[in-house]
Amino acid sequence: MAVNLIIPKKVFAVEGITIGVTEAGIKKANRKDLTVFKLDEGSTVSGVFTKNLFCAAPVQVAKKHLLTGKPIRSLVINTGNANAGTGQNGLENAQKICSSLSALLKIEDCQVLPFSTGVVLEPLPVEKIVNNLNKAILKFDKNNWMEAAYGIMTTDTVPKIFSEQFTVGEEIFTITGISKGAGMIHPNMATMLGFIGTDLCIKQSLLDKIVKDIADKSFNRITIDGDTSTNDSFIIMATGKSNIKLNSENDSSYASVIEALSKAASDLAQKIVRDAEGATKFITLQVEKASSKEEALSIAYSVARSPLVKTAFYASDPNIGRILVAIGYSNTNIPINRIKIWLNDLLIVENGELSESYTEESGKRVMQQLEITIKISLDNGYFSEKVYTCDLSHDYVSINADYRS
Amino acid sequence: MAVNLIIPKKVFAVEGITIGVTEAGIKKANRKDLTVFKLDEGSTVSGVFTKNLFCAAPVQVAKKHLLTGKPIRSLVINTGNANAGTGQNGLENAQKICSSLSALLKIEDCQVLPFSTGVVLEPLPVEKIVNNLNKAILKFDKNNWMEAAYGIMTTDTVPKIFSEQFTVGEEIFTITGISKGAGMIHPNMATMLGFIGTDLCIKQSLLDKIVKDIADKSFNRITIDGDTSTNDSFIIMATGKSNIKLNSENDSSYASVIEALSKAASDLAQKIVRDAEGATKFITLQVEKASSKEEALSIAYSVARSPLVKTAFYASDPNIGRILVAIGYSNTNIPINRIKIWLNDLLIVENGELSESYTEESGKRVMQQLEITIKISLDNGYFSEKVYTCDLSHDYVSINADYRS
Repeated sequence: MAVNLIIPKKVFAVEGITIGVTEAGIKKANRKDLTVFKLDEGSTVSGVFTKNLFCAAPVQVAKKHLLTGKPIRSLVINTGNANAGTGQNGLENAQKICSSLSALLKIEDCQVLPFSTGVVLEPLPVEKIVNNLNKAILKFDKNNWMEAAYGIMTTDTVPKIFSEQFTVGEEIFTITGISKGAGMIHPNMATMLGFIGTDLCIKQSLLDKIVKDIADKSFNRITIDGDTSTNDSFIIMATGKSNIKLNSENDSSYASVIEALSKAASDLAQKIVRDAEGATKFITLQVEKASSKEEALSIAYSVARSPLVKTAFYASDPNIGRILVAIGYSNTNIPINRIKIWLNDLLIVENGELSESYTEESGKRVMQQLEITIKISLDNGYFSEKVYTCDLSHDYVSINADYRS
Repeated sequence: MAVNLIIPKKVFAVEGITIGVTEAGIKKANRKDLTVFKLDEGSTVSGVFTKNLFCAAPVQVAKKHLLTGKPIRSLVINTGNANAGTGQNGLENAQKICSSLSALLKIEDCQVLPFSTGVVLEPLPVEKIVNNLNKAILKFDKNNWMEAAYGIMTTDTVPKIFSEQFTVGEEIFTITGISKGAGMIHPNMATMLGFIGTDLCIKQSLLDKIVKDIADKSFNRITIDGDTSTNDSFIIMATGKSNIKLNSENDSSYASVIEALSKAASDLAQKIVRDAEGATKFITLQVEKASSKEEALSIAYSVARSPLVKTAFYASDPNIGRILVAIGYSNTNIPINRIKIWLNDLLIVENGELSESYTEESGKRVMQQLEITIKISLDNGYFSEKVYTCDLSHDYVSINADYRS
């Protein structure tokens, strides 16, 4: 059951992007598992990818194609198989998908970016994909974003979609994006796919910088189980169909555009946590007054990853000592007797020990909420960071013990 | 249900050590929760302790007392409350226990080492402990090791005890030890207590070195949930009652003694994993041919900590891609196309991809065993390391969601 995950009622198409979704029978029958994006000429595309050493074949191919500098015109995404740990054969399969699609679309192979998500270390049934590309193309429509959000789901329980229109001066621009989780989620990144489309016109070199900056504050700030997958990818596609053009960080509209894109990416990233495997609570780690970004993140992740903290939140049990313990093994050297900790507005720790005003009843009340912020103030500097996670429930174990069956 | 955990039928007393165990009603009634060790004059004692920043009050006091150089004559251990995150008041409580016990035993305060395990961040009911020390003393008996093994249990399901007699030349010596887990277990170290007694005579400075070396290869090589607790302690007590004296590493009996003590410490550490919270499988990570100790350990812990790997083992599901994924995010830079991986004797990965000889059926057969070694050969150097862990089951979540209730 996803935690307070809002599916927008109105989804705006992005001029210059059409989408087709179909069934290829990759792992299961009667399941939309193949999605193709087509981009009009003049679009710019940029992405960031997993840092896992066993980075999947499609990720390797996508990175190579982006490096050619040729305009990207199409994205193809399959679920049901990650095409990771599949060696030379896996690379050839990813390339074959690109060349089949490029032939159908009359573009070059290197203008296609391939994406796969699903089980690792099993051979990709490439023919099923190749033979169904034409079926996906026949469905091309600019209003297929919701179909695509469903089409890229694996253990997700709900589609994840963001869609909003923004204005800069007199001009309107649109941002619509989709993402999928839902386990194996940790920064840099996860079995996580995120695709954002916008009709902004953004210069390629600037988009390359923007996609990194935005990923760092959104998709790289979520952790579910500490597992970083082989296939994580986050892509921004800018079609240039609106009248807003971005060439440099000094453009007057830059700040507004970054704010809008960040909103979209944060929303899509947090939706992955809200629909994390077995999640019943959405937890924000907010570390303040740290001496550095690294110190703040180290403490935030130490708490966010602790199975003992996560099971306590699942049980709505204010066993807050577990938070202190996780801070204590965070590999930092903070002055522990200056730490303050709040659960939402409730002060629970002061001077490194239980706050005198704290009562078990007040702790229990906060722990029963669906959204809880653990605010940790270090009184050690001026850096703040936020990380998003969820609780660890019986269902996480069930889902992951059964995933392949 | 502990995994293949053997409780020895015969437990040897250690000359020079007497033990008393009693009920102090610290957290629950009718539960033996207070254990006192008394050591004869002439004993040497050394220990290693948690590196958690929020190191508990008793740990701080124990370290201080060891530093005085005065011979340690007594250990006192309570369960039910960790006396951690309890500030100045916690320190005073730990000291009060020492002074009460030293008065009863007619020794100095600094000759007592205190230990606590249980819930963090709650005030220690110190009067209950102090008022029951005399009851524990009345029970002093050298044959109380099994009672002590029960007395230090928290969420452990079975007592953990090692006892064996060894010979060096014509001489016999005895090693008996106890430990407790069972969650919050990760190197450096865990809610982990380990106490080993021996009648060897070991010079203090040599024992200080031995206890570190042995902890590094035993208690610091186990991980259950990655949580490092505030109270972890491992102590060796050497009473000197046997005829075997150790003054330096050059003594002829040194190697035999280290082997025997290592056997005891490894046994007690592995017993903690075998009885880990919810464990149904005992898993050994064996990383070979690494370019450094750090590289081997980084990969071993990355796999051993992965919730996705651990749930797959719980389900007996050969979802071996998850092992590759965890290696891939281990923060190393190994040549992935030279990796080989075995599950026990079954080769599953070769050249960084699925072995051609591997079949799903053979994988399933191995995964159903209770003890599984994941052997990872990197072909990158000459270093090997072993780490011990367990699977992640429904019961882990249940136990930790319910622990305080």
